[in-house]
Amino acid sequence: MKIIVIGASGTLGKKVVEAFEKDHEVIKAGSKSGDFHVDISSTNSIHDFFRHIGTFDALISTTGNGHFGPIAKMTDKDFRVGIDSKLLGQVNLVLIGQHYISEGGSFTLTSGIICDEPILNGLNLSTVNAGINAFVAAAAIELHNGVRINAVCPSVVEDSPAYFPSFPGYIPVSMERVKAAYVQSVLGARTGQVFKVY
Amino acid sequence: MKIIVIGASGTLGKKVVEAFEKDHEVIKAGSKSGDFHVDISSTNSIHDFFRHIGTFDALISTTGNGHFGPIAKMTDKDFRVGIDSKLLGQVNLVLIGQHYISEGGSFTLTSGIICDEPILNGLNLSTVNAGINAFVAAAAIELHNGVRINAVCPSVVEDSPAYFPSFPGYIPVSMERVKAAYVQSVLGARTGQVFKVY
Repeated sequence: MKIIVIGASGTLGKKVVEAFEKDHEVIKAGSKSGDFHVDISSTNSIHDFFRHIGTFDALISTTGNGHFGPIAKMTDKDFRVGIDSKLLGQVNLVLIGQHYISEGGSFTLTSGIICDEPILNGLNLSTVNAGINAFVAAAAIELHNGVRINAVCPSVVEDSPAYFPSFPGYIPVSMERVKAAYVQSVLGARTGQVFKVY
Repeated sequence: MKIIVIGASGTLGKKVVEAFEKDHEVIKAGSKSGDFHVDISSTNSIHDFFRHIGTFDALISTTGNGHFGPIAKMTDKDFRVGIDSKLLGQVNLVLIGQHYISEGGSFTLTSGIICDEPILNGLNLSTVNAGINAFVAAAAIELHNGVRINAVCPSVVEDSPAYFPSFPGYIPVSMERVKAAYVQSVLGARTGQVFKVY
């Protein structure tokens, strides 16, 4: 399979690449690193990326920014960070990528546990992550040609110690478990699912 | 109580006004009708509105647009209709309104059943509604001064027959039940909740 990984050099992306590169053609993309550059907050950049890559069998997105901070000081501009990047960035990978994906292909997006277990300062990404999960459920009932779509929704992961203080009492999940969820999504047959890793 | 209803002339808003106007001061606002005009897709308009209204005890939003249409033809521009209106419009009512609300006040937003029961052509509003539900859960753990926040999440309602064909097999819920959910949110004590009316 020809598998695109967006965010290939990130904490999650590196593990995803490891999971697939032995048996598949993996196209590593990112905003600043990887074989191909794509800025998911720009529809022009996404269009250019797919025009260049052409047809593919699976797309895995492990990328997208959000705003961390207290509601008391949050503004529309802050809130749009996660909306434009992690939410609409991933949404647009699907809206544009649907015209390039092979029959029976799959999209796998990434959300996160604070969709339903909020933490302090996480308002923006709680909203964004819940939106992503609902997006894959709704997109799955409309995509044609056997194309599937899922989200992987991890808890705080063991390779991201910088986030541990934001998740008091959370036992970080292993990178092996997270990696396995992406494999389930891409090589399994389910669609419209949220693979919770927690 | 001084209660602001945004979308006061809409299908839901009219019933909400009925529920509260006997015993409370109800400020009816809307994009084009009502005592006060406010365009929730504009932060300037929201700022102007609150500067004019001043302090309040409860805000109920029953408004916000979204895009209906098939994923196959959906673009970023289409998707942003619901993001900018129903999602960020309601988010900004809270982000800005938090600086005007009284101690112990409440925000009540409106989402909808397709957050977790998708329908054809509903991709944009599924995403938006799920985002709203997660937003209230995350905002509730951060709001100060006893300020509460909830969402009412109705199924298709009996007063919106135009939507019935989009919800095959759904038994429209009564306006009385929907109205009651807003009363539970405003006059009850719960916070961070999604009041599902289905």
